[in-house]
Amino acid sequence: MGTRLTIALDAMGGDHGPSVVVPAALGFLRQRPDAELILVGREEAIQPHLKEAAPGAALRIHHATQEVAMDELPSRALRNKKDSSMRVAIDLVKRGEADACVSAGNTGALMATARFVLKTLAQVDRPAIIAAVPSLDGQTHMLDLGANVDCTAEHLLQFAVMGSELVRAVVGIASPRVGLLNIGQEEIKGNEQVRQAHELLAASSLNYIGYVEGDDIYVGEVDLVVTDGFVGNVALKTSEGAAKFMAHLLRQHFNRNLLSRLAALAALPVLRGFRRTVDPRRYNGASLLGLQGIVIKSHGGADVLAFENAIHIAAKEINTKVIARIQHEVAAHLNLARGFGLEQQRAVG
Amino acid sequence: MGTRLTIALDAMGGDHGPSVVVPAALGFLRQRPDAELILVGREEAIQPHLKEAAPGAALRIHHATQEVAMDELPSRALRNKKDSSMRVAIDLVKRGEADACVSAGNTGALMATARFVLKTLAQVDRPAIIAAVPSLDGQTHMLDLGANVDCTAEHLLQFAVMGSELVRAVVGIASPRVGLLNIGQEEIKGNEQVRQAHELLAASSLNYIGYVEGDDIYVGEVDLVVTDGFVGNVALKTSEGAAKFMAHLLRQHFNRNLLSRLAALAALPVLRGFRRTVDPRRYNGASLLGLQGIVIKSHGGADVLAFENAIHIAAKEINTKVIARIQHEVAAHLNLARGFGLEQQRAVG
Repeated sequence: MGTRLTIALDAMGGDHGPSVVVPAALGFLRQRPDAELILVGREEAIQPHLKEAAPGAALRIHHATQEVAMDELPSRALRNKKDSSMRVAIDLVKRGEADACVSAGNTGALMATARFVLKTLAQVDRPAIIAAVPSLDGQTHMLDLGANVDCTAEHLLQFAVMGSELVRAVVGIASPRVGLLNIGQEEIKGNEQVRQAHELLAASSLNYIGYVEGDDIYVGEVDLVVTDGFVGNVALKTSEGAAKFMAHLLRQHFNRNLLSRLAALAALPVLRGFRRTVDPRRYNGASLLGLQGIVIKSHGGADVLAFENAIHIAAKEINTKVIARIQHEVAAHLNLARGFGLEQQRAVG
Repeated sequence: MGTRLTIALDAMGGDHGPSVVVPAALGFLRQRPDAELILVGREEAIQPHLKEAAPGAALRIHHATQEVAMDELPSRALRNKKDSSMRVAIDLVKRGEADACVSAGNTGALMATARFVLKTLAQVDRPAIIAAVPSLDGQTHMLDLGANVDCTAEHLLQFAVMGSELVRAVVGIASPRVGLLNIGQEEIKGNEQVRQAHELLAASSLNYIGYVEGDDIYVGEVDLVVTDGFVGNVALKTSEGAAKFMAHLLRQHFNRNLLSRLAALAALPVLRGFRRTVDPRRYNGASLLGLQGIVIKSHGGADVLAFENAIHIAAKEINTKVIARIQHEVAAHLNLARGFGLEQQRAVG
């Protein structure tokens, strides 16, 4: 690794492996000729997709003999796949030979392996998964998207601190508005850990705006939505489902008969623009946050454009030195919060 | 109450009170001249909206002096508002003077009051809120949508039994496919109560198809999605947010310039058809399930068409004798399940 940014790509991960990862790498390098990419995986599987592009300083293959299956149990992958493309890509980050890695492989195995190899940042109990969704005024980041099913209030505070710093670094918002996902009913507002997290967040120096509800994610009045991994994953998947359903219905209506198909022809440029705006590929790439290294998870079914976007997210996190910044913030905020927690306990006891 | 169906309407509830409820009642009666509606609330507030329509056998006013505010605490409403339009509408159901009631008032107060006045069905620990969302092959029902923040596996089973019978009765599906909402990661599949509920559902005689994820709600491969009230509420609100966001972007793209506005003109009939299909007003009306009476919750911001739809849902539940059917199913299923639970305990202990 020189002064240029270097990203290791798990070339065998995802539903499509090197047939997507290699063209995405080539596409990325056309836009970022200053970068260096390492394709990790079986050389004989990667080589055919390189075609005329000769490996060189900017793009090289790092051979790895194994692959992690999309349905493989994380614990088994961790134990039995020490030379998998996923594991070796993470090892390269650990050894400082890459500044980040990107994988479209199985989320559970990626998280377990990254956590084992890279370790969490000091004072972070659990890593979380964060990604951006489009909103009326740009984008909203949300975490955790599925790494942690059960979270304490303290975990949610850690997520908020890390996520807030990531948004500050990557999106460039000086003081990201942080919201805690809750439901709107009075008196049964949230469960116990949400109410406790609310107290911790209100006492923190984050720009905490209070509770937000599911529909607020898309309104653009919050930059970071904090929730546990079960709720966050359901919210994300449900949104994707609703958006796909709307798109399907729109197509169906335009395909109904000759007249509607003519209307579709007239509306084609508009519909294309609309589709580009909501294209989920433009948002592909979730970050595993809280680790001592940058690990980006691409959607398993990502195509070339989508995977390329995930590489751009890795590059952005490298350029903005996101890990060092998060480590700094975590140390500052969580020391305070722990002090606060102790005082609270003393006051109660 | 004669042999015709009689529905009590909380005329003062919701953001718009009688200005929405009264025209909705008149609209409903034009389609269902066999029905009888009772407008509950302050006579002097209701009367002006009746205009030329003279109250008669089919439509009468039942005076109630108080109103429950949209942000009023449920416990306070229950204690202090014994002559509220909401409370009196529920009392009419309790006394058998109405077969159902519909309110656009505050959800927490409606649930608390309905539960206090009507009581839950035998063997039902907690009522839940259920509603339908559109899906590729028609509609999917989901519960709980916010009544219960923390649920045990046993509660989730009760929701599944009640919801399944409601879908069978109201939608007319002989054997509704029941799915348990979960997230897709292996090894961390769900939290403890979801895993336990999975066992109970698999052992039940329901048509349980297993875990479903957030995006499955819209695909139409499941008729009933079961989850706790926190997750269900977030899923519903997030979907609404995503759908509104898509609709907003579509409008924005068609309004961009002269050419796109011309395209919108050409596509107008198609866009209207699309909008009709996804119109959330057509899905307005959630049922408070598990009570000894039919209580329908309309969205607080419902307009005339939306509120009318909620009255139609009440009528459908009356006609299909949903409460008696649910009570019968609950008795059959939950006795079995409790037996099963005991045997399990014995086997373990």
